Amino acid sequence: MSSNYTNSPCAACKFLRRRCTSDCVFAPYFPPEEPTKFANVHRIFGASNVSKILHEVAPHQREDAVNSLAYEAEARLKDPVYGCVGAISVLQRQVLRLQRELEDTNADLMRYASCLGGETTSAYGGRRG
Amino acid sequence: MSSNYTNSPCAACKFLRRRCTSDCVFAPYFPPEEPTKFANVHRIFGASNVSKILHEVAPHQREDAVNSLAYEAEARLKDPVYGCVGAISVLQRQVLRLQRELEDTNADLMRYASCLGGETTSAYGGRRG
Repeated sequence: MSSNYTNSPCAACKFLRRRCTSDCVFAPYFPPEEPTKFANVHRIFGASNVSKILHEVAPHQREDAVNSLAYEAEARLKDPVYGCVGAISVLQRQVLRLQRELEDTNADLMRYASCLGGETTSAYGGRRG
Repeated sequence: MSSNYTNSPCAACKFLRRRCTSDCVFAPYFPPEEPTKFANVHRIFGASNVSKILHEVAPHQREDAVNSLAYEAEARLKDPVYGCVGAISVLQRQVLRLQRELEDTNADLMRYASCLGGETTSAYGGRRG
């Protein structure tokens, strides 16, 4: 046999048409069953940048790094203008809206409290015998 | 004169040591005064991927595209594991926390309302003569 392994090459090596060795930095995170995951990160970041990032982070953090890169790449392919920064804007607006709503609700609560006067504590803190 | 322009080359052409022509796709978004902006997107996405994305989007959207790419690149350089996906996680947790807080405050409001009984409407809807 000319090959020294029996498993399929990882999705990255298959995509890049290169030999997948036992120390392949991509193999643990790009299984052959998920070819799109690698194709996406390659299209947006380029294989060599992904490899550089993987070598920069500790081995136990590489899976998280790959997953965040895959998320960013997918978002950028769906939305070439904003990518996942679009999601950040949506979430920031949602936070602002919720904060305002909470402020309004707290103001209503204060108004109730002043109407109830002495009864406030028992109503707010739960019913007392 | 061997050069047909008098302005400085844009930050991208300066970085890539190439001639900056009048139709340079980078020039409007990477002024020479901001060298880090291009260096960052180049380090994370690669110049050719950035150029590809710019050609994919309409000219009026290119500034937004560059700014979101610059934001993502800076976030990835600061946090190689999570990049700007880290900000998304923080915001998602903040949204959940605010939603729970709002639910609790609304429940308190309902409890007050049931204590006030008939007075509810006037207290909640503003004071009536």
